[in-house]
Amino acid sequence: MSTRIAFLKGHGTENDFVIIPDPDNTVELAPATVAALCDRRAGIGGDGLLHVVRSAAHPEARHLAGRAEWFMDYRNGDGSVAEMCGNGVRVFARYLQRAGHVGEGDVAVATRGGVKTVHIAKAESGGEITVGMGRALLPEGDVTVSVADRSWPARNVNMGNPHAVAFVADLSEAGHLYDPPPFSPATAYPDGVNVEFVVARGPRHVAMRVHERGSGETRSCGTGACAVAVAAARKDGVDPAVTGAPVTYTVDLPGGRLVITERPDGEIEMTGPAVIVAEGEITSEWLETVLA
Amino acid sequence: MSTRIAFLKGHGTENDFVIIPDPDNTVELAPATVAALCDRRAGIGGDGLLHVVRSAAHPEARHLAGRAEWFMDYRNGDGSVAEMCGNGVRVFARYLQRAGHVGEGDVAVATRGGVKTVHIAKAESGGEITVGMGRALLPEGDVTVSVADRSWPARNVNMGNPHAVAFVADLSEAGHLYDPPPFSPATAYPDGVNVEFVVARGPRHVAMRVHERGSGETRSCGTGACAVAVAAARKDGVDPAVTGAPVTYTVDLPGGRLVITERPDGEIEMTGPAVIVAEGEITSEWLETVLA
Repeated sequence: MSTRIAFLKGHGTENDFVIIPDPDNTVELAPATVAALCDRRAGIGGDGLLHVVRSAAHPEARHLAGRAEWFMDYRNGDGSVAEMCGNGVRVFARYLQRAGHVGEGDVAVATRGGVKTVHIAKAESGGEITVGMGRALLPEGDVTVSVADRSWPARNVNMGNPHAVAFVADLSEAGHLYDPPPFSPATAYPDGVNVEFVVARGPRHVAMRVHERGSGETRSCGTGACAVAVAAARKDGVDPAVTGAPVTYTVDLPGGRLVITERPDGEIEMTGPAVIVAEGEITSEWLETVLA
Repeated sequence: MSTRIAFLKGHGTENDFVIIPDPDNTVELAPATVAALCDRRAGIGGDGLLHVVRSAAHPEARHLAGRAEWFMDYRNGDGSVAEMCGNGVRVFARYLQRAGHVGEGDVAVATRGGVKTVHIAKAESGGEITVGMGRALLPEGDVTVSVADRSWPARNVNMGNPHAVAFVADLSEAGHLYDPPPFSPATAYPDGVNVEFVVARGPRHVAMRVHERGSGETRSCGTGACAVAVAAARKDGVDPAVTGAPVTYTVDLPGGRLVITERPDGEIEMTGPAVIVAEGEITSEWLETVLA
């Protein structure tokens, strides 16, 4: 095979992605190929891969083609398929804008999790990209998370995936975060949990670290930032469903800053930067080694 | 600044590099720019950067221009300058070959550590690349390395940088290798040490893991593979200086296979694969954020 594959690399708050533009869905992306492309030393490197395909050209998105021209065929770094990725869809929208496929304003993107509306701010306003992240559920019941010999009470927040949000005095308290922090009761998270450690930075402003289930400590986690904003609001005694007014928190992560708004209807929006770092082609000699 | 910068990414046994071709030395690579390019999530990602410049165009290499047309202006991933990198110079040679600057056979490459002769094997023989790595010193005296509650005797080998080579029954004995393994006596390595754990795989064939001083566990370490081959030869009772015949060891690392030959004069040659993964351009919008 002497085909060359075009690619870009981009990131949103250092959640990074290999982008493969493929409007007509002609590039074969087997799980092993995706994993090789996302390998940080033997490949390009990325937390995941954004396969950019016209909805009409992809069997999983054809039924959405009337509502969203482009389909984000999202793959995890290990090659498996995923429904959605909040930072990923923001980088996806930046790619579409850069390629001239869409302009500023609202953009509909088809995903395996349905059609998402993404908003690209005007360049003169910073050009940041907003995506709807759905609603948070806050199951009742106390949970506790631990690192080494310390433990903290945590808020149980579900953003479609499970989170335990612990407020701490200092982010260094959580130490290295090499291993998944143990939690109790075990019944709270039968499939494991993403754990956030949070400190206050000022009014409606927090900073966080996150241990992502299956990934370890990461530079950014979109659903984690949303879970943290909701937990911080409740801790501050604020609930948009009660006040009828949206509430906005600034959330600083190791990889950058996200702004999270919770609306009275419970819908959560996440706004932040998305940047394309480089573009080019995968070499055919490397592809041969991967496909061999 | 709207300049675009051409780049490639390549690796040798998963020691990976951002390559910046710049024959006339016109690209300004401040330490912060290099560190940003080598950042695995916010940039391209690499263990280091290979700035490819004609020796005649670089003040540090002009005096070598008569002996080597190309200068490897090597930078560490943190932006600092380094003299040499064994896997780096092999990837450097692969780039020169791919760009048509050199052919198969011997290639002289200027480095801050002097002119290195690199050999590119013919494609039909696998095309692997060999580089001279200098000689090993084996200081007298017993050393011990530890991980958690286990300790092993180790051989002290100096390849220009210090190594402690421990033979173990199983590579998993060393556990996670998150932290630098403690060693004794402290006087053996006043500036710290690279620690290798080695198991026998067969005649003249070993496998290793390495904890690199300042970097943690890595997928490959060229000087570490050389130190391991020399320590294994001595353990096997073989010394080319005594027998008058070269000895060759195959060394398997997490990132691939290196073949190490020690000659009777003590000179050590390292042979292995080098592959260019991708090529393209850094985007001007990303450069603006880095240079801001």
